[in-house]
Amino acid sequence: MDIVQYMRALGQQARCAASEISRCTTKQKNNALLAIATAVSDHRQAILKANAQDIKLATAKVDAAMLDRLRITGNTIDAMLASLQQVALLPDPVGNIDNLSMQASGIVLGKMRVPLGVIGMIYESRPNVTLEAASLCLKSGNAVILRGGSEALHSNLAIYAAIQQGLQASEMCTDIVQLVSTTDRAAVGQLLTMEEYIDVIIPRGGKSLIKRISQEARVPVIKHLDGICHVYIDQNADLQQAHTIAINSKTHRYGVCNAMETLLLHKQVAADVLPQLVSDYLAKEVELRVCSNSRALLNNDQRLKLASEADWSTEYLAPILSIKLVDGLEDAIAHINTYGSGHTDSIVTKDIAASQQFLREVDSSSVMLNTSTRFADGFEYGLGAEIGISTDKIHVRGPVGLEGLTSQKFVVLGDGHIRQ
Amino acid sequence: MDIVQYMRALGQQARCAASEISRCTTKQKNNALLAIATAVSDHRQAILKANAQDIKLATAKVDAAMLDRLRITGNTIDAMLASLQQVALLPDPVGNIDNLSMQASGIVLGKMRVPLGVIGMIYESRPNVTLEAASLCLKSGNAVILRGGSEALHSNLAIYAAIQQGLQASEMCTDIVQLVSTTDRAAVGQLLTMEEYIDVIIPRGGKSLIKRISQEARVPVIKHLDGICHVYIDQNADLQQAHTIAINSKTHRYGVCNAMETLLLHKQVAADVLPQLVSDYLAKEVELRVCSNSRALLNNDQRLKLASEADWSTEYLAPILSIKLVDGLEDAIAHINTYGSGHTDSIVTKDIAASQQFLREVDSSSVMLNTSTRFADGFEYGLGAEIGISTDKIHVRGPVGLEGLTSQKFVVLGDGHIRQ
Repeated sequence: MDIVQYMRALGQQARCAASEISRCTTKQKNNALLAIATAVSDHRQAILKANAQDIKLATAKVDAAMLDRLRITGNTIDAMLASLQQVALLPDPVGNIDNLSMQASGIVLGKMRVPLGVIGMIYESRPNVTLEAASLCLKSGNAVILRGGSEALHSNLAIYAAIQQGLQASEMCTDIVQLVSTTDRAAVGQLLTMEEYIDVIIPRGGKSLIKRISQEARVPVIKHLDGICHVYIDQNADLQQAHTIAINSKTHRYGVCNAMETLLLHKQVAADVLPQLVSDYLAKEVELRVCSNSRALLNNDQRLKLASEADWSTEYLAPILSIKLVDGLEDAIAHINTYGSGHTDSIVTKDIAASQQFLREVDSSSVMLNTSTRFADGFEYGLGAEIGISTDKIHVRGPVGLEGLTSQKFVVLGDGHIRQ
Repeated sequence: MDIVQYMRALGQQARCAASEISRCTTKQKNNALLAIATAVSDHRQAILKANAQDIKLATAKVDAAMLDRLRITGNTIDAMLASLQQVALLPDPVGNIDNLSMQASGIVLGKMRVPLGVIGMIYESRPNVTLEAASLCLKSGNAVILRGGSEALHSNLAIYAAIQQGLQASEMCTDIVQLVSTTDRAAVGQLLTMEEYIDVIIPRGGKSLIKRISQEARVPVIKHLDGICHVYIDQNADLQQAHTIAINSKTHRYGVCNAMETLLLHKQVAADVLPQLVSDYLAKEVELRVCSNSRALLNNDQRLKLASEADWSTEYLAPILSIKLVDGLEDAIAHINTYGSGHTDSIVTKDIAASQQFLREVDSSSVMLNTSTRFADGFEYGLGAEIGISTDKIHVRGPVGLEGLTSQKFVVLGDGHIRQ
């Protein structure tokens, strides 16, 4: 297969399909989503079988966490069906006109929400992303080219077959959703450089994938990078609240990007809150890597490892936590802005001034007061669904829902207005 | 000079200054803008003298239009002073929190406007962009690294000296605004790839500059490309309005990106409106390049040239206009989406359905009804000022004011909320 030719054909078809989906009514799009749900339900056995094949091939090659992300169960399929229903129920952002206002000249100006066009989605392992991304792109009026991980190819093809059946059943153009069916890595290179066909690339994956994409892309990218999330327990924190939030942020789930990776404590409250926290973390078998001051405070407890410089910028995605004492609020903010990944950071405090300074000055996509970092999530934020969590500053930051997959154009209504 | 080292030093200083300016109050920023105005006024003679030097050096090398863009007069300086006053009066977007709402879990969620960080501004010839870009970046809480055209270097350095004096006088960090003082083109290459120091590149210039930037950039770019703007006179247009808008869109100013370059006419009204238009354009010495159907309609008038395929995708920026008859609305929309540049396009019609279809389906940053394309402008849109007109779909489209130079982060207010 000639990869360049193959990818360019996908691009051309997507551009054409984007024009068609951008003109569809909300009702047409919702019907398609429900038809896809019916088709996924019809294909349940085929999807499970394809996934079993992927799991079998991957077992020798990948670690348990990756195998876990790859696996589709009956519950996964039920969740996929529920998600399609939910996306169908979400309000359609396309065509909304905001901020209509009359200007000095008498022209009436507003901003209309429009689809972005063609989205290139590059992701790893989790095959349910295939369906999530397809449904969100469809609902927001975009065409999408999906490039999943090679280890999930059979699962993705099986899900894709259901999507195609659903699109056909609802008489939609089947090119609205296309899946790159080759695992050749050159296909990604093509996707990243087809400026005339692709409007934006959304990558979801590990650091090496994101790095490659940043280096090669000629089209705009909405990056979804790692989450090195912090909780900072301030001098004036409610210590009971601090304890609960610190435990929940770390131990609610380990393998997720909004889990806390570093706990910062004001040195004046550390003695009151750290011993109980350490005891509870260790009881939950969380490995602790602490600064020398914390270790001294805990009588050089041998169960605590000394953190290295690298720990402060590591996303563990595992039952490991780094802990550091800081001199105060400014020190905490500086640490977060230096070592964090701009994802999600939370302060625990009763002090209004401290909270305001933290919320203003921490340069992250979500900044939180007295809240577990685990709330950084499209569903918790009322977006109804999310295609990922952007750590970019351009276009959209934080959880990305339907609106993040649209743009706004100016609409100008005149009545023969000319410039004087 | 080691360019890499020089540019990295600018980047480091800018990153540091960005942190400082992001924390400044609106009053501090406005004071700095007014202090810069005072300094520009003090430096009036030096700026005019430096500009005379640039004009002298450029005269033999560049065309009249470019020389015109390069020239600073007393009026230009007065306009610069007025613009600084106006930017000082604009509302500060930074820190605003929109859409505060309570979510199902009880957390309160909002979106806070924050600066982008460090902006790299790359532009050509017009030296007043130096001051415009500096003032808009400053007001929106960003640091900026300016890279102007080599032909304007003396003018830019003179304006930059005034900016520095103004920043000093108001006790602001002078690295908030930095100017690349070398004309070595390698400096641009560095600016485009310093991901750790630059958050976004805003280029303003010709196609070759934009092309280079798209190819080399490793940081996000908000492109400001050409304006191939259309007016479409529909079957049901008010023909008097159509005439006025078509004349104004083309002849109000020729060298601007929001001037009409192609006039599209519904074939059923062409006979009623085209002869008078042609006569008026020719009286204004506008060269006309027309489709064969138009030419036939005008009895093969020898003053009309036949348009070539290339004319439909040419931005003349000159008293030249291409004219084409179309079969109807769909044909007009298809022509615009194929040959246009996604800048600004206007329909003249009295028909509601036609206007709605045009506004929805034309894929441009500004879509207009019964309005001259010349209104596509930050001032006319009430933005108070503009740093350019984005033809990108990502982040911001159309005229870009202060808000386009900011991003939004999620703010989450809880009271000990944890995920269940």
